[in-house]
Amino acid sequence: MPTLRLDLAYDGAGFKGYAAQSDASIRTIQGELEAALTTLLGSPHETAVAGRTDSGVHARGQVVSLRIDEEVDVGRLQRSLNGILGPEISVMAVSSVDDDFHARFSALWRKYRYTLSVGPAPDPLGRGHQWHVGPGLDTSAMEETAAHFAGEQDFGAFCRSVEGRTNVRRVEEAAWENDGPLLHFWIRANAFCHQMVRSLVGLSYDVGRGFTPVGSVAEIMASRDRGRVVTVAPPHGLVLWEVGY
Amino acid sequence: MPTLRLDLAYDGAGFKGYAAQSDASIRTIQGELEAALTTLLGSPHETAVAGRTDSGVHARGQVVSLRIDEEVDVGRLQRSLNGILGPEISVMAVSSVDDDFHARFSALWRKYRYTLSVGPAPDPLGRGHQWHVGPGLDTSAMEETAAHFAGEQDFGAFCRSVEGRTNVRRVEEAAWENDGPLLHFWIRANAFCHQMVRSLVGLSYDVGRGFTPVGSVAEIMASRDRGRVVTVAPPHGLVLWEVGY
Repeated sequence: MPTLRLDLAYDGAGFKGYAAQSDASIRTIQGELEAALTTLLGSPHETAVAGRTDSGVHARGQVVSLRIDEEVDVGRLQRSLNGILGPEISVMAVSSVDDDFHARFSALWRKYRYTLSVGPAPDPLGRGHQWHVGPGLDTSAMEETAAHFAGEQDFGAFCRSVEGRTNVRRVEEAAWENDGPLLHFWIRANAFCHQMVRSLVGLSYDVGRGFTPVGSVAEIMASRDRGRVVTVAPPHGLVLWEVGY
Repeated sequence: MPTLRLDLAYDGAGFKGYAAQSDASIRTIQGELEAALTTLLGSPHETAVAGRTDSGVHARGQVVSLRIDEEVDVGRLQRSLNGILGPEISVMAVSSVDDDFHARFSALWRKYRYTLSVGPAPDPLGRGHQWHVGPGLDTSAMEETAAHFAGEQDFGAFCRSVEGRTNVRRVEEAAWENDGPLLHFWIRANAFCHQMVRSLVGLSYDVGRGFTPVGSVAEIMASRDRGRVVTVAPPHGLVLWEVGY
């Protein structure tokens, strides 16, 4: 059975997240994608995904895999999918991959970008994918905060916990980038728990605006108490940027 | 009489251009701005503008000026305007300027950016301000085309002409910039005639896709015949970037 890899970008604004819901009238990326695949391949196919993004979260480099019954023309499948799914969802590539490739289990890391807009007013053309917080943030305190996030740690203070599952994750990169009126938070980890990036950004923002002292970040992390993280950044500033295999 | 300068950014998608129309039910940037100023200043004020952008065209650095009867708190006026006009229109700055400042007549140059998306599928987050044309353009032929645009010339082949008005403009910069899956066309001139940038981009695109030979560009320009330029690029890829004083 041939295996296909799909590379997706999407504007999450109009979707209740990636994962299909039991109520098929709820619009999701997976729901739209699998319906299109059913139309084009002639029967339903199960798909695997690298990152199950939340409602309103965007993607530039989402990866999906599926097994199919027989070889297909990948270029033609890509064009047909884009004809059905565009313009909110774009299939940037379709490729035939090794049978042992699995979008979720083969992934070595995921990289996300969160963007704050720190100018005097939001950029009208960026407002759909930037959280406008205005000027005056203490960016050096935010960089100091980000340094605490690196390494293999229990991120319980930043996760909507699931009973019996670990919140230990290995963060390989966490840094702020200045880009004119924008501040990008880049984070790469082996995996993320639910709402982790938005909670890390929320705490960083609270430090940047002087609400939370940077000196308390280590202690908040060690507490593993989600009640200590007051702010969860809104979803529209977040983009699943890239997945490494 | 104090004079104010307003620096505006806007998403042109929801507007029938900058200029107010006699039918006030037609939504324009100027109409929205002047209505907000009337509300905040207590009476109607005439405004001048650097670039009267067309329907669907965006701005990052539009400039407007107006005379007011008495000094105002510029920071407060900016916040109040943004409260009324956001999020499609953002007032990035309000400042008191010399009485002889006029947004249109004092401007030395205008700079526009037009963005083509040349990846296999459009970027869902950029689709509102990029013209997706796909891969395969001959960018060196497009750069050669842009070189023809520089200098003081009659741009009659690229302008929706107005009887009795000259189409001579001085282009100070015209170049393509490669930016991953995007191609930006930057153009700076003392002034532009109607649809000039979109027509220059249209011709460049026709050259890039092999429809128009690059060798005929000089002759098309010299013809001053608008019928020779087949393609006018759609408005949503265009941004009024900056105005120089």
